[in-house]
Amino acid sequence: MDSKITAYLTQKIRVINKTLEALLPKASTKPPTLHRAMRYSLFAGGKRIRPLLCLAACEACGGKESEALPTAAALECIHTYSLIHDDLPCMDDDDFRRGRPTAHKAFGEGIAVLAGDALLTLAFEILAQVRPTRRYPLSALLFELAHAAGSHKLIAGQVADLEGEGQKLSRSELRFIHRGKTAALITASLRSGAMVANASPAKLKALTTFGENLGLAFQIVDDILDITQTREQLGKSAGKDLDAQKLTYPAVIGFEASKHEAARLTRAALKALAAFKQKEKTTLEMLARFLLCRQS
Amino acid sequence: MDSKITAYLTQKIRVINKTLEALLPKASTKPPTLHRAMRYSLFAGGKRIRPLLCLAACEACGGKESEALPTAAALECIHTYSLIHDDLPCMDDDDFRRGRPTAHKAFGEGIAVLAGDALLTLAFEILAQVRPTRRYPLSALLFELAHAAGSHKLIAGQVADLEGEGQKLSRSELRFIHRGKTAALITASLRSGAMVANASPAKLKALTTFGENLGLAFQIVDDILDITQTREQLGKSAGKDLDAQKLTYPAVIGFEASKHEAARLTRAALKALAAFKQKEKTTLEMLARFLLCRQS
Repeated sequence: MDSKITAYLTQKIRVINKTLEALLPKASTKPPTLHRAMRYSLFAGGKRIRPLLCLAACEACGGKESEALPTAAALECIHTYSLIHDDLPCMDDDDFRRGRPTAHKAFGEGIAVLAGDALLTLAFEILAQVRPTRRYPLSALLFELAHAAGSHKLIAGQVADLEGEGQKLSRSELRFIHRGKTAALITASLRSGAMVANASPAKLKALTTFGENLGLAFQIVDDILDITQTREQLGKSAGKDLDAQKLTYPAVIGFEASKHEAARLTRAALKALAAFKQKEKTTLEMLARFLLCRQS
Repeated sequence: MDSKITAYLTQKIRVINKTLEALLPKASTKPPTLHRAMRYSLFAGGKRIRPLLCLAACEACGGKESEALPTAAALECIHTYSLIHDDLPCMDDDDFRRGRPTAHKAFGEGIAVLAGDALLTLAFEILAQVRPTRRYPLSALLFELAHAAGSHKLIAGQVADLEGEGQKLSRSELRFIHRGKTAALITASLRSGAMVANASPAKLKALTTFGENLGLAFQIVDDILDITQTREQLGKSAGKDLDAQKLTYPAVIGFEASKHEAARLTRAALKALAAFKQKEKTTLEMLARFLLCRQS
């Protein structure tokens, strides 16, 4: 990873974390267990990929960073809630996440379910403070996030994943899962960043295609890393996906084919950015390449 | 229950159910298990108290019913999600609700968690279609519902309930639980109904006081019914609250004192409606009396 992106990520993640810190209730707020659990999972060293993409999309469309920050924070709350619930014993039953015990291991199942619920709800409370733009009223932004996180997308992917466990699924069924679980919220991150910047319809469309391809590529890279990385590097139980006969690209189409598919999708994503001038899209391109080449 | 309120409830519940039917994804929508589970819990014969209060508040403030219906539906989605998660083995561990197996008994724990998540998310997607009024932009309505359902109110009450189980709590701690678990969303139902009707600040304030008192009264009546009713009448495991040393008003302040407290709170609620003309507030008064005198 070159020093330019390192510096960029360090600076942006600092701003994102500062925003989250200000928007989250203090750990001492009644009931403290709940607010500690929310913060435990939200400040567990997440890569902040969805907020980063939201900020980059806003920047690419000429918007100000400050206008995208609440939406970026809401996206991270939704993402974190989905991880907490995914890790539950009745779902993926994971004991570790980002090198630490998962929320239900640290706080018990009841509090973990409620901390997830509270983060999802807080995401929408945060959205209430976003200023609408000329082209995109608050209703458009609200629909964007709620639909991506809902029963047709994010939760649909999780259900298909849950029901597909141990079964032999086709490539298209696997793609349905990945589109829902990963690509939907990544696409919504880019689209919502564009919306708060009052993006032209052409740019919004370009970012949609960019997000759909990048989101799938990102998930395939995640699947590949799960196989190639050790637990120390990854911060979660490595090789778990193969152990549990989970549905991953490497398991369905093979390891090398998965690498090629991720590269192909990334190229398709980058191609979709043709609607932007080079100066506008530099950050988005840098993030896309970073997400494909990452080691954890 | 006199025939006037019976006819009113029958007609309004029909309209509310029709709205929910139209807003919920079909049971066959992919993934069908998820959407069947969402519908199973949402169409389990709920009393629709929150939507009814939302419509009545809207009517009292001179608004049209059609303007309140999406918000009323969103409130019922939030309420149903909270019941599904409350019933989970890691929370109250209830096997029956409204005379039928609870969602996790019928669909398994994983799907139950996700169906709850999906109903909560759908509530906010539905809100995106509410038309703002002159005094209340969509952001005000969004904040109202998200805050009432969030970590300071609804979920705070659930956490305090979970943590207080088997312990001897004070009356004020019990009130914190009931305010959060019940009164918060009931108050938000009335306030949001007023908002879509572009209510005056005085009427909004009156409905807030009405809701806070009515919500607590409603919960005390619920606690009392749990003791006096059999399972057949109630449709859930009766006497369960006392068995589990749950925190109820009868357990903390005694049975007769609880009945008096419920009556006192209902009087306080009705008094708060002084800001309305008699003609405006007839339905709200009727609903308040119905909620205090109900047998299930």
